[in-house]
Order: sequence, then C-alpha cells, then structure tokens
Amino acid sequence: MIRVGINGYGTIGKRVADAVRDQPDMEVVGVAKTRPNYEAEQALERGYDLYAAIEDRAHKFADAGMETAGLVDELVAQSDVVVDATPSGIGAQNRDLYEEYDTPAIYQGGEDADVADVSFNARSNYDEVRGADHVRVVSCNTTGLSRLVAPLREAYGVEKVRATLVRRGGDPAQTGRGPINDILPNPISIPSHHGPDVNTIFPDLDIDTLGMKVPATLMHMHSVNVTLEAEPDAEEVRELLADQSRIMVIDESLDIEGTGPLKEYAMDMGRPRADLWENCLWGESVTTEGRDFYCFQAIHQESDVVPENVDAIRAITESADAAESVATTNDAMGI
Amino acid sequence: MIRVGINGYGTIGKRVADAVRDQPDMEVVGVAKTRPNYEAEQALERGYDLYAAIEDRAHKFADAGMETAGLVDELVAQSDVVVDATPSGIGAQNRDLYEEYDTPAIYQGGEDADVADVSFNARSNYDEVRGADHVRVVSCNTTGLSRLVAPLREAYGVEKVRATLVRRGGDPAQTGRGPINDILPNPISIPSHHGPDVNTIFPDLDIDTLGMKVPATLMHMHSVNVTLEAEPDAEEVRELLADQSRIMVIDESLDIEGTGPLKEYAMDMGRPRADLWENCLWGESVTTEGRDFYCFQAIHQESDVVPENVDAIRAITESADAAESVATTNDAMGI
Repeated sequence: MIRVGINGYGTIGKRVADAVRDQPDMEVVGVAKTRPNYEAEQALERGYDLYAAIEDRAHKFADAGMETAGLVDELVAQSDVVVDATPSGIGAQNRDLYEEYDTPAIYQGGEDADVADVSFNARSNYDEVRGADHVRVVSCNTTGLSRLVAPLREAYGVEKVRATLVRRGGDPAQTGRGPINDILPNPISIPSHHGPDVNTIFPDLDIDTLGMKVPATLMHMHSVNVTLEAEPDAEEVRELLADQSRIMVIDESLDIEGTGPLKEYAMDMGRPRADLWENCLWGESVTTEGRDFYCFQAIHQESDVVPENVDAIRAITESADAAESVATTNDAMGI
Repeated sequence: MIRVGINGYGTIGKRVADAVRDQPDMEVVGVAKTRPNYEAEQALERGYDLYAAIEDRAHKFADAGMETAGLVDELVAQSDVVVDATPSGIGAQNRDLYEEYDTPAIYQGGEDADVADVSFNARSNYDEVRGADHVRVVSCNTTGLSRLVAPLREAYGVEKVRATLVRRGGDPAQTGRGPINDILPNPISIPSHHGPDVNTIFPDLDIDTLGMKVPATLMHMHSVNVTLEAEPDAEEVRELLADQSRIMVIDESLDIEGTGPLKEYAMDMGRPRADLWENCLWGESVTTEGRDFYCFQAIHQESDVVPENVDAIRAITESADAAESVATTNDAMGI
C-alpha cells in the first residue's frame, strides 16, 4: 500500500483524499489543514487523521473541539508520497519540508512549473515522471486541453491549437468573487498563461490561448480550434474522442445545453460532490472544416485534476505503468 | 431633407430615431409602435409623431392618454425611407406594406438575409446598395466583425477568420432572460450563424464562428483570430485599427478591464443611453504570432448598428457617397 499524505484540505485536497481512499493500492495517512472549519469537521467525520499545517495555530483545532494527530511535519515523515493541495504559491514554500523528509511530492497547477522536476498529465506524459521526486499536476484548464490534444496529435498530427477559455469567475463556495454582470478579457494580453502551460506537457506544440472571465461558478467552457495535419471527417474524430476514458462526449439525446444541466446530470449519476472528472465535450459541436477541427468542452475546475493526482502518485512511486494506473484509478472512482 | 419613418420603437428604433433627428440632411416623420409603454411616452416627450402599428390596438394609445398621428400605413406613405426596427421576423411580414407605398426600406439583422436585396455594412460594402429598394443592416455581431475584417483585408489580405462570440444573455431591460449562472455553447453546433452572416457582406471570406451565451447583459465579447496573408507586427495593426472611425482602440492607460467599466466610460462621456457605437477593442490585446492576428473586442448589442442604419438611409437614397455619409453620421452623433 502506498501511504499518501494530503497537505491542504480545500477544494482539491478533500477530493484527492477521497479518491486515494478508494484506491486498492493506497491509503490516506492523514490530511493537513491550516485552520478548523466545515471541511476540517468533515475530514474527521470521514475518519481522516487531521494534522495542523501551522504550529502557531494548532491550538485553534482544539479550541474548536477538533482533535489533531500532530503537525504537518509528522504527516510528511510518515508518508510515502505527499500531495500538496495548498493554495497557489504555498506549494513552492513547502518544497523544503518535503525534501527534509525525503518524501516525494505532487504539486498543483497553481504553482509555477519550476516548483517541480516535471509537469504531468496522465494521458500525455505519464512516463516522463520516472525518477522525479517533485511532480506538478497541471491546472484544470491545461489538463482539459492536454487530454484533448493528446489523441488528436497521435491520430492526425497537430499543426496549431487556438483556444478561447471562458472561465468561471469563482467556485460556488467562493462567495466574494466576481464578476457579477460583466465579461472580462482576462488576461487582456494574449496569449493567456494556458498555452505556455500546455507546452510544459507538449514542449513543441504550437498553441495560442485567450482567456475570459464571466459571471458563472459551475465550470469553465473551452472553444477549441485545432488545425490538424490531416482532414478526418467529424464523425471519425468524434469516435476517437469518445474512446478516450477521460473525455465524456455528450450525446444530443441527453439534451444538455450548458454547465447547469451538466452538473445536474452529475448529481443524478450520484457523483460525489457532483464532480465531473472528465472533459465534458459536446458531441454535436465536433466539427471539421478542411484541416480545422472545432469543439466546445466544459471543464469542472474543482475536480478534473483529481484522477490525475492519483495517477501521479503511481507514476512518482513507479508502482504501475500508465495504462494500469489509469484503469485502476478510473475503476476505483467510477469514471 | 430625407423624410425617414421608423417602424418599431424598441431598443434599435428609438436609437435610430434620435440619430436620424440629429442628422443635418434628415428628419423624422414619425415612429410606429404596437402598444403604449414607457418608450411610447418618451417618443411623444421627444416630439416624435406616434403611429399605431396595429389597427386593432390603436385605441390602447388613446386609453393610455397617448396621442397618435394615425396608422403605420400613413407613416409609410409620407416617408422617403422607412427603417424597420420591429422584432425579428416581423420585418419580413412588413415588406409588402413598404412595397405597396413604393417606399424603400431598411431592415435589421434579425431578419433573414433574403428579406432584402442586399446586406449592408457602411465600412465594407456601402456602394453595393446602389439601386436597391430593400436593404438589411447586419446584426450587431456581424457589424462588429465586418468593421474589423474590412481594414485587415485591405491592408494584409485575409486567409481565414476564426472567432468565438461570447454573447450577453439578454439586454439590461430584458428581465426575463437567462442564463443566471451558466455558460452555454450557443448554438452547440458549429459554425454559429454569424460566419455565414458575415459572408453576406464578404461572400468569399473564409470564416468560422462559435457562439456562447453567458450571464451578463451589457455587451458581447469577441475573441478573434484572423490568419492574415502577411506578417505585420502588432503595433502596425493596432495603428491601422485605431485609424478606423468606428473602432475605439482602448488604451491601457484607461484601465478598462471589461464591459462594466466600458459602459461607465460611455456614461462619463455623456453618451446618450450610455451607447457605444464603435467596436471597443482592447489595444493591449492586439497580438500577432506569425500570420495570426488576435484581439478582444466588446460589441454593444443595443447601439453599434445605429450609425449603420443612418448610413444605409443615405446609401438607399443615393444622397451621399460612403466617405461623406460616414463623416456626416459620425459628426452628427459625436462618434
């Protein structure tokens, strides 16, 4: 069993903890958090040992009646791998801690790429993790783009990718974020950081990305153009994409018009936290015009990287190859 | 003086009426409306003669204490040109009426292209209106794209246009429209109708458009890619665009992040109804990558076609050439 510690128990950390718990070859050593709140309460409710991430504030857990198992250092010491799911920028600060205990670590896409030896997407570059001690799972949007680009490159070759990422303003629980009634070019300068981030997975890919921010909370929406090196018909490309285990091609018959019904669908399927771990790609949108491929896909910012973190744990411990890991992860999570 | 009747006094009609009133060579004969409401009250307040568009409901104006000058037929009979600003699909039904009185008519972009002899954008194809009796001013989004494409074609040649149009869910006064918290591919199928609509202006242009709908009311936002036939640097393209009279290149120094501050800017400038008649294009977003040009532009759905309607009046009456008309319109409106 791979003993996994989770440092940071917010949007990503709590999901990764549950996904790790469900794997046949892993166990959750514990989770670390900076302060007591409803998520900490639920961590204990689920039976996870709770560690205080900041020594000075450790007493706050006791004050709130929440029992801790120690400090984050002890969690790191006991773990075969740590998944760092702390807020952007904190992961880089934690790297020394993981090195001190010689514990391999997995960081999130909010960190700069240079926090790690290699950036990771299971479908695209699993094998490049071999021998690395510090791995960064790329962000939700970069994960979504990489999953789409990988099969297109293999099947047809890619000349250029152009994508507009219409991003949710904040997650449903981020009550203080905006916009309320605006559409923002964000960033105004082009390209957005997403294109260069995809290049951490596919260094030689020609990709330009444009970002926006809108008053919505449920998912991001990508408008994607890929100029291929071949001229496949749309039906063939649709079948190729439907064959990918982490792309859910939405059939017209489901009558799903946007991210609202998609999340409702996830709830009806009984998905934990209404998570959509796959790229949600509208089958009807798959279009080819000569060598130009187009589609719309929605990306669940809170969860699509979760199975990628699980696979990164196996990659960094060299305990399974890509196909085995993805199959095991998917099976355990119900993807 | 060109005597102009306005049939339909809603979002577009009321703006066209005011713009026509302000022209040195035009007068407003009157405006026609189907029913009394706050807009009808303000039409009378402005001194416009009010005509009932539907005979059976004409009494409702009297019931509401609003004086009418007659029925729409009388308005059409007295006008040299009618601007039809009725809801989508009604314009086509009105065509017989205009033909009965031999009154040239201008329709809006919500009508199918075949309602008219020619579709119109002042910057792009003013001269093609010569001899036409029925002209259609293309929609707000098509107008915005045409204004951008025209100078790029002339200066560099255009190989292909790819644009994602992130559209507002409804206008500020359309209280019943959505979405509230969703991002919709809309239509899900690709291309959206906008590309083919731009082809009514540039028949040989290679253009693919993708549409979305989001919870915002103020303006549309375009993410535009144009593959040019040359490789200009970004600064040169920015200057070219800044030279266009109906493209407002937003300078970084204005610190305008999205459509909210843009509309605030319009109010601060004293623009009537906070209208933004120009394409509002972020200077900082103007980017070239080899032959690929990119930019963001915001389009004010309620007003960008207004100066185009005014120019269409001169084009259909052959009373000025393109340069004269655009200069006169801009000067009178304060563009």
